[in-house]
Amino acid sequence: MLSLQPVGYVRTPYRATVEVPKGPGAQHHAEGVLEVRPEFEAGLLDIEGFSHLYIVWVFDRAGACELVGVPPTDTRPHGVFATRSPRRPNPIGLTVVRLLRREGTRLHVAGVDMLDGTPVLDIKPYLSSVPAEELRRGWMDEAGH
Amino acid sequence: MLSLQPVGYVRTPYRATVEVPKGPGAQHHAEGVLEVRPEFEAGLLDIEGFSHLYIVWVFDRAGACELVGVPPTDTRPHGVFATRSPRRPNPIGLTVVRLLRREGTRLHVAGVDMLDGTPVLDIKPYLSSVPAEELRRGWMDEAGH
Repeated sequence: MLSLQPVGYVRTPYRATVEVPKGPGAQHHAEGVLEVRPEFEAGLLDIEGFSHLYIVWVFDRAGACELVGVPPTDTRPHGVFATRSPRRPNPIGLTVVRLLRREGTRLHVAGVDMLDGTPVLDIKPYLSSVPAEELRRGWMDEAGH
Repeated sequence: MLSLQPVGYVRTPYRATVEVPKGPGAQHHAEGVLEVRPEFEAGLLDIEGFSHLYIVWVFDRAGACELVGVPPTDTRPHGVFATRSPRRPNPIGLTVVRLLRREGTRLHVAGVDMLDGTPVLDIKPYLSSVPAEELRRGWMDEAGH
């Protein structure tokens, strides 16, 4: 129905899924480089002013979709839309990163949690946050994260 | 390269782009209903516990990609990756909504900013926020929003 192409790729320290810290309590301080394809460089105009970005990316090495599964951070099964599982109906990942600096088509960022070489579909400015007192995290809070 | 299919559609009060409040200062309190396709209902298990969700969706009525453009909230041009413009290389939208309640495959949510009938690609739990004091919003802050 919808065909997409990568606007770039992310370089990260992670070669295998097992190396990526898991769970909402995980600290994602790892640095990486978002390499934007040269034909999209104009789209980066003024991106330096933003402290944080959304990266929309592809789980390009995920298994088949699993609607209900047991996450690595719990012993109970949960629906895929209530988890960050890679085995989604559409294998789209989403990460908030901190923009450290830009060098032409290369965005140096902190907080990557995807595998090295992951294709990127979109980059968006992170604009606002949900106040902490309004946030509930369902089974994740119950599971102690 | 990547072919995706909708997991559902959003019902919103907006029939035309001009009706949608614009800019990061815009208040998105409008309520809507995310209608998940029945074959994906199992993926909603335990979603009720989350106060906020990410909706990843398709700008299905956007014009051709425009790498640099003048947003409705400013008089200066900016790169598409530094804006929320619908005219993106991959027409993917992202919205944080508040989950009001679930009725089977129907998620009643607040904070919709997409057009009525918009296809949804993914639903994810919103887990954490960037502390307000760490957030910089580049040209948007300068433009007075």
